[in-house]
Amino acid sequence: MDTTLRDGEQAPGISLSPDEKADIARALDRAEVGFIEAGSACTGPGERETIKRVTSLGLDATVTSFARGVKGDVDLALDCYVDGITLVVPASDRHVESKVGTTRDGVVETTTELVTYAKDHGLWVEVIGEDGSRADPDFLEDVARASHDAGADRFCFADTVGHTSPEHTYNVVSRLAELGPTSTHTHDDLGLAMANVHASLSAGADLVHTTVNGIGERAGNVALEEVAIALHHCYNVETVKLDELYALAQKVAHATGVVLPPNKAVVGENAFTHESGIHTDGTLKDDAMYEPYPPETVGRERRLVLGKHAGRAGVKAALEEHGVDATDEEVAAVVQRVKELGDRGKRVTDADLLAFAEDVQGRERDRQVELLDLTAASGGGTPTASVRLRVDGDERVASGTGSGPVDAAVKAVRKALGPNADAQLDDYHVDAITGGTDAVVTVEVTMSSGDRSVAVAASHADITRASVQAMVDALDRLLAPTPGVSEPAASADD
Amino acid sequence: MDTTLRDGEQAPGISLSPDEKADIARALDRAEVGFIEAGSACTGPGERETIKRVTSLGLDATVTSFARGVKGDVDLALDCYVDGITLVVPASDRHVESKVGTTRDGVVETTTELVTYAKDHGLWVEVIGEDGSRADPDFLEDVARASHDAGADRFCFADTVGHTSPEHTYNVVSRLAELGPTSTHTHDDLGLAMANVHASLSAGADLVHTTVNGIGERAGNVALEEVAIALHHCYNVETVKLDELYALAQKVAHATGVVLPPNKAVVGENAFTHESGIHTDGTLKDDAMYEPYPPETVGRERRLVLGKHAGRAGVKAALEEHGVDATDEEVAAVVQRVKELGDRGKRVTDADLLAFAEDVQGRERDRQVELLDLTAASGGGTPTASVRLRVDGDERVASGTGSGPVDAAVKAVRKALGPNADAQLDDYHVDAITGGTDAVVTVEVTMSSGDRSVAVAASHADITRASVQAMVDALDRLLAPTPGVSEPAASADD
Repeated sequence: MDTTLRDGEQAPGISLSPDEKADIARALDRAEVGFIEAGSACTGPGERETIKRVTSLGLDATVTSFARGVKGDVDLALDCYVDGITLVVPASDRHVESKVGTTRDGVVETTTELVTYAKDHGLWVEVIGEDGSRADPDFLEDVARASHDAGADRFCFADTVGHTSPEHTYNVVSRLAELGPTSTHTHDDLGLAMANVHASLSAGADLVHTTVNGIGERAGNVALEEVAIALHHCYNVETVKLDELYALAQKVAHATGVVLPPNKAVVGENAFTHESGIHTDGTLKDDAMYEPYPPETVGRERRLVLGKHAGRAGVKAALEEHGVDATDEEVAAVVQRVKELGDRGKRVTDADLLAFAEDVQGRERDRQVELLDLTAASGGGTPTASVRLRVDGDERVASGTGSGPVDAAVKAVRKALGPNADAQLDDYHVDAITGGTDAVVTVEVTMSSGDRSVAVAASHADITRASVQAMVDALDRLLAPTPGVSEPAASADD
Repeated sequence: MDTTLRDGEQAPGISLSPDEKADIARALDRAEVGFIEAGSACTGPGERETIKRVTSLGLDATVTSFARGVKGDVDLALDCYVDGITLVVPASDRHVESKVGTTRDGVVETTTELVTYAKDHGLWVEVIGEDGSRADPDFLEDVARASHDAGADRFCFADTVGHTSPEHTYNVVSRLAELGPTSTHTHDDLGLAMANVHASLSAGADLVHTTVNGIGERAGNVALEEVAIALHHCYNVETVKLDELYALAQKVAHATGVVLPPNKAVVGENAFTHESGIHTDGTLKDDAMYEPYPPETVGRERRLVLGKHAGRAGVKAALEEHGVDATDEEVAAVVQRVKELGDRGKRVTDADLLAFAEDVQGRERDRQVELLDLTAASGGGTPTASVRLRVDGDERVASGTGSGPVDAAVKAVRKALGPNADAQLDDYHVDAITGGTDAVVTVEVTMSSGDRSVAVAASHADITRASVQAMVDALDRLLAPTPGVSEPAASADD
C-alpha cells in the first residue's frame, strides 16, 4: 500500500506544516504502510524542508518524492534523501503534446534516461504514466516497457482525472502487468475509485496509491482505509494495521481541517452507529446482524442512538444505560415521545430521553442546576462573562475570563459550581455555520463525572448562550442522583 | 433509478419534516428519478402523514413505502395511497432464524402470500431479500422464484450490511437475473457500494437503489449522483437529469444537516476546484486536461484557487481576475509569497494575494477601512455591540443589536460605514468547531459591491472578533479603487 501525502495535500485549501506532516508520516509508519510519498521536492524550499523532516525520521516505510520528467526534479528529490521517486511522465496525447509539448518518442527517451539516472543514484523508482486512462494503450505499453528495461521498480496505471471504467482499467492493467510489476492510481470523480482499484488488482496490479480519508484533488483519491478493510474482509489480504486506521483518520482530519463526513466508510462517526428501530433491535440480539465486521477491527466501538425509527428494545436499552428501570408500558410511552420529537426533525439527546422518562413515570424532579442569567462581553480587551446559577436551591454568581466569550462563560459556570462539581467537558461541538450571521447555532456537549456521562444539545442564535445552556443542562443531569445518568458509552453488548 | 428517502433518513440523527420530504420528493421528480421510496408506513402516524404528503403531490415517479413481511404493513402502506411497496423478507439464516424467528419454508410461504395480496390491491411490488449477500444463494433463488411466480415486479439483491465482494455480487445477481427483473441495494461499509453496483449491472440487474449524497445507515448507501454520472460518462446510459444533481445534493444536505464533504464526487465543493500548480496550468491550457467531464454537465462551475502548489500561470490568472497587471518577475515574486504562506499551512485568500502584489509592486496603499475597537455584550438581554472604525481617515463609531453578538457587531459595522457602502455579505462560513471552547475559529466571508467580489478569512479564539475582522478586511478591499478587486467568480476559461 502506498499512501501519498503529496496527492492528499494537493486538495484545494489543504497545506500541512512540517510538524504535521512528520506526525502523519510517523502514524502511517506505525500502521505499517509500505510506501509514503512525502511530497514534491520541486514545489519549493519549504516543501523540501518538510520532505527532509520525513526522511530524517528513520521510518520503515519507503519514503518517496514526486518528480516531473526532468532531471532537475530527480536531483531535488536526491537532495531530500528520499528512498525513491514517483516519476511522472505524460502518457495521453493531450498531456504529451498540449501540456508538455513533446512527442511520444521524446517521452520514451526521457523515461529511459531518467529511470537510468535515478537507479544509478540508488533510488527506488516508480514511473507514473500521467493521464494513462486516456492514453493509447499501445503507447502506454511502450512507456512501461521502456521503464522496466531501464530498471524501474514499478509502472503505474494512473486514472489521473478519475475518468475511466473498471472494464478499461482491467484491460489496460492486464496488458501492463504482463510487462512487469504494476501499481494503480485512481480518483473518485465518477465514484469509481474503489471499483477501479478492484479491477486493477484483479488484472494483476500489486500496489495501490491511496490517501487517508480519500482526500485529494477534486473528488479525491481512493481511501487507504477502504482499500485496507475491503482486502482484509473480502479477500483475506492484509495490507496495513487495521486497528491504527481510526486514529490515523482523525489525525489527518485534524491536520488538514477536512472534517470526516459522518457516513464515511470505516472512519466516519456513523460507520458503527445504529439508530433505526429494526436495526438496533437486530443488533441487540446479535452484533453481526447489521455489521459486516466488528468495529474493534478498526480501533472503534459500536454506538446506539435514538430517533424517529426508535423501537422498544433500543429505548429500553438506552434507559437502562442511564439507570432507569421502566415497565413495558412506560417504555412504549417513551418510544412514542421519541418518535414525535424525531418526526419534527430533531435529534434525540440523553437529556430528552430522561425528561420523557420522568414525565411518563410521573417522577417529580427538581433541577439541580439552572441558568438564571448570563452576561458576556468581548471584542476588544479581555473576553469576560458572568453567570448567575441556581444550584441546589442556592443562587450563585461568578465571573470568568477566557480566550473568547464562550470560553469565558464556561469558566464562569465552573467557578459558580465550585470544586465539588468535578464534571469534565469531554466534547464540545458546533456544526459548521453557513448562511447569515443570524443563523441559529446548535451546540452539542458531552460531559462526564466519574463514570457517568451525558450528551446534551442546545440551540440559539447566540453561540455563547447556546454553549452555556447546553453545559448547564448537562451539569444538571450529571449532578442529579441516579436514575438520571449512568456509565458512559455503554454499548448494548457489553 | 430508485432513490430511497427511507434509507437515507435511517441514518443516525437524520429526521425530515413532512415539508422537507415533500420538497425533496419534488426535486427528485424534477430530476426524473423513476422510483421514490418515501418512507416506512409502519414507523408511526407521523411517518404516514409524511408519506401521504408525498403521494398527494402527483409525481411522475412511482412512490413506494417500505413494508416488513407482515400483512399489516402492506395495509398501512395502502392507507398512504402509495403506488407500490418494497417488501422486505429475511434471506440470510441469521435473519430468518435469529431475527424474525421463522424458517426458510415460512419465508417462501409468506412472500407468496403477501406479494399476491399486494398485487391484488394494485401495487407495484419489489421484494427485497434482506441480508441477501450473506444468504445461501440457493435459498435466495427460491425466494426470488416465489416472488416472481406470485407476480412481483422485481426482486432485489440486498447487501444490507455492506459486507460483500463484487465477485460474489456478480455471481448471485447473475443467477437472480435469470429468474426475472432484478434490482440491487448496496451499502458502503467496505467502500464497495459502487463496485457492487457495477458488478450487479454487469450481471443483469436493471434498477439501482440509491440515496442522494450517499447518506444512509452506517457508511451509507451508494450515491445517486455517482451512479448517474458513471453510467452517463462510461456507458452512455442516461438515468436522471444530470444538471439537477447539484441543486438536489444541496437541498438534501441542508434538510438533513449532513454537510457535503469537500471531496465528495460530483457534488462536493472541490469536485471542480483546481489548486495545484501543474493542474491549474494544465486547466488554463485545456479545460479537459484535469477534468473527466465539464462541470456544467451536473449544473456546476469550475473554480481555481491558490495554495502552496501555486504556479505562475495560476497566480497570473488570479491577479488578472482582480484587475492587477504584473510583469513575469512580479508574478514570480508573488508565487514565492503564496508558496510561503501555503507552506505554513494557511489558505491563500484574495486579500492575501492582493497584499502580496502590492508589496511586490511597491504600491503604497492606505487602508480604506480599519477596525480600531470592538465591544460586544450578550448572554441575557439584547445582544449589543459597538465598533470604532477608521474609514477614509475619519473615525466613526456605531452600535447595533442583533440575534447574537456576531450579528450585532456586523450590524454596527454596517451602520458605521453608512449608506454609501452598499456592500453585501454573500457568504458567511465558520468551519465546524470541535475540541474545546477555546479553539481558534476561522471565519470566511465573501462580500460584494456591484460587480466586484472579494473573499477574506480571519482567525481568532473569539468568534465575534474573527467575524468582524474578516468583514472589515473584505470591506477594506471592496471599497478600494481598482486595482484591488474585480468581477466575481471569473473562471479562467470565460
